[in-house]
Amino acid sequence: MDLLSIDSLSEAQIGLILDRADHFFTTTREGRPDEPLKGRIVFNLFYENSTRTAMSFATAAHRLGASAISLSVEHSSVKKGETLEDTARTLNAMRPDAVVIRHRDNGAPATVAAIMEAPVINAGDGTNEHPTQALLDAATIRKHFGQIEGLTVAICGDIRHSRVARSNAKLLPRLGVEVRLAGPPELMPADAPGLSIDEAIAGADVVMMLRVQRERLEQELGDRPGEYLERYGLTQSRLATAKSHSVVMHPGPMNRGVEIDPAVADDPQRSLITLQVEMGVALRMACLEMLVGGSA
Amino acid sequence: MDLLSIDSLSEAQIGLILDRADHFFTTTREGRPDEPLKGRIVFNLFYENSTRTAMSFATAAHRLGASAISLSVEHSSVKKGETLEDTARTLNAMRPDAVVIRHRDNGAPATVAAIMEAPVINAGDGTNEHPTQALLDAATIRKHFGQIEGLTVAICGDIRHSRVARSNAKLLPRLGVEVRLAGPPELMPADAPGLSIDEAIAGADVVMMLRVQRERLEQELGDRPGEYLERYGLTQSRLATAKSHSVVMHPGPMNRGVEIDPAVADDPQRSLITLQVEMGVALRMACLEMLVGGSA
Amino acid sequence: MDLLSIDSLSEAQIGLILDRADHFFTTTREGRPDEPLKGRIVFNLFYENSTRTAMSFATAAHRLGASAISLSVEHSSVKKGETLEDTARTLNAMRPDAVVIRHRDNGAPATVAAIMEAPVINAGDGTNEHPTQALLDAATIRKHFGQIEGLTVAICGDIRHSRVARSNAKLLPRLGVEVRLAGPPELMPADAPGLSIDEAIAGADVVMMLRVQRERLEQELGDRPGEYLERYGLTQSRLATAKSHSVVMHPGPMNRGVEIDPAVADDPQRSLITLQVEMGVALRMACLEMLVGGSA
Repeated sequence: MDLLSIDSLSEAQIGLILDRADHFFTTTREGRPDEPLKGRIVFNLFYENSTRTAMSFATAAHRLGASAISLSVEHSSVKKGETLEDTARTLNAMRPDAVVIRHRDNGAPATVAAIMEAPVINAGDGTNEHPTQALLDAATIRKHFGQIEGLTVAICGDIRHSRVARSNAKLLPRLGVEVRLAGPPELMPADAPGLSIDEAIAGADVVMMLRVQRERLEQELGDRPGEYLERYGLTQSRLATAKSHSVVMHPGPMNRGVEIDPAVADDPQRSLITLQVEMGVALRMACLEMLVGGSA
Repeated sequence: MDLLSIDSLSEAQIGLILDRADHFFTTTREGRPDEPLKGRIVFNLFYENSTRTAMSFATAAHRLGASAISLSVEHSSVKKGETLEDTARTLNAMRPDAVVIRHRDNGAPATVAAIMEAPVINAGDGTNEHPTQALLDAATIRKHFGQIEGLTVAICGDIRHSRVARSNAKLLPRLGVEVRLAGPPELMPADAPGLSIDEAIAGADVVMMLRVQRERLEQELGDRPGEYLERYGLTQSRLATAKSHSVVMHPGPMNRGVEIDPAVADDPQRSLITLQVEMGVALRMACLEMLVGGSA
Repeated sequence: MDLLSIDSLSEAQIGLILDRADHFFTTTREGRPDEPLKGRIVFNLFYENSTRTAMSFATAAHRLGASAISLSVEHSSVKKGETLEDTARTLNAMRPDAVVIRHRDNGAPATVAAIMEAPVINAGDGTNEHPTQALLDAATIRKHFGQIEGLTVAICGDIRHSRVARSNAKLLPRLGVEVRLAGPPELMPADAPGLSIDEAIAGADVVMMLRVQRERLEQELGDRPGEYLERYGLTQSRLATAKSHSVVMHPGPMNRGVEIDPAVADDPQRSLITLQVEMGVALRMACLEMLVGGSA
């Protein structure tokens, strides 16, 4: 099986992944290594730059005992005009045990998966999906609150272009979460205008801020210092309208002072941002184990 | 010993490599790992971009239990003006167990090998040689036909600039193969005009198409859609003149619709193109084993 | 603990590192592997291009049984405007066992180390320090002469901008070495004019030449062929004024014919340049062992 989108996962699979992520989170903290994928080979194909996701998957693979072989876009045959299908056929013939792919084109991982015999994990495709991000977000929320059902999560920012928002909007409701989507009108999907930022945050348990592309600021939203923050960002005063125990999340990398006030991002009582990263490695270990280890 | 060119290999070494490639092809398919190079370190130096060859060598090294440490041109001291000899002295002093090198200059791997104590494998140098490609082509042909002696192989395309053609033209005759070289007159060596494409393919057992550089199309050969395919490419009608059991090969990456008709490339009865890639990893495992493992 | 600067090391730690470097130098030559860091994960973060240092650290990590996961600048979130502190928080949350960092900004490794729980090794920061280079230089000198105390080392070249010179000027005197700094007046620190090249080399046991940036030649020092060599470089006639048993060092990559006469660089009786590289891997094994293995 592949992990291309949230919809491709059953309830049982989601539950297993979240439980195993918890397990690996703990064993990593305790320094108790476990190498169920010893000798296995994972191809990491990043056709878009990424620090955190590429490092996270490589760390997850190594921590399971596998070898990660990374291909970055600069080294690819993309420039030579080879089709993605031909690249997939080529890589498939090398018989890796799993393929992780990030690509700027929506659906590219599905194209690769249709050809590849080994499991394929979508590490983010265009504006489509980023399923492991949504899963790690859910695992992080569950870790922090002890449970996830019944919580309200406000996802705020560039909803229209965000694969993180899209995958979370599919996953979280299946776990009993009320999801509120909000952003600048210019950055909301045409068919789902959503709420205002203030409406979304009021009374929420979790405020998840999305990264805004600086290019969009300049072209569409104005770019005077603090302008976006004031109008659409997470300030301390906005956060004060959320539940008193509310927490803040961000998939990173953050634009400090743009979509989020640094004082909020760095508040150890409220910010789950580094917990997300830590859970991210554990969650990807769980996904690799399930897909490669044969427990699916 | 090094693996710099076909001529540097004895008949016994060629036979050993082909046999061990067959062995690793089977053990990989059967998931029976073997790690004779456990703890060894292979340096992969790619001064030219490459998807398939870089990934193939890295996969081969890991599958043998070795670690592959990759250096891409962007990270090299090349930009700082260090000579290739000084880079070789530096890398030699780090005492790797093997060095794989691709370089745009003819003879660069030999320059490195003259300095390096560890075995050096030429992964393609300029227009000179690409010996592991020729070896994997031979192993693939032998795998498919059960034997290789007595077959006729037509190699078609940009013969003048092709290190793949050059290495195959040296290797295949030693295995009892009749090699026919053919291409556009502008792309044939001055001293070996060769055959026409039609003459080469007629009655051949294997048709091996070479990649044509798009820049050459524009500058020398015209570039209207389908023009090169019609005049020099492998069409279904041309392939129909080869033997009825004939097969098609291509070192990749392919220019679909330029040097090869997609219907031919994708014909499961005729195309050995993905088999070449799969055999490529096994063949490089055999080369690394022979050179590093001490069975040479 | 971290390894950010020479001053952060105690005499006992310096002694331990040099002794263990000697140990690993020998075990590597003898092919006796030892994997005290098996299963550990080292992040190699190179925000500046580097052949030798990046490969050296990766080789050291693998030779100790660890996995090295490399992040090059092209793949970083730097371009996305993330702060170094946020990158450090992110990487810290992935729980690597050690982080090696090279960065163009003075103090960047210290910034990362202030956040990172795992040990951080400074692999060169701006014009500040390059402590593992100084340590490997000391280990190389000690290896060659049998002892280091009482020797005179002339460090010649672009002293003002050299992190290699700075770290050596701190380390070597603590080991009983007399250090002489010399270079073109334009390239000496304002507060330490130093000696002339001729004064520094006369009677020295070791002449350590620094790389001069070609851009500086053009802008500040003239760039007619041989001009810099004649005025400030290590020629055979200058070397003849050093002690009869004197040796030559260079951190690489060399500009042959600029700061050093090739005949000097390649003289097997005088040049320790490749010995430095070999000792470099052993020295970094010693540092990783001390910092990660818990023997600190």
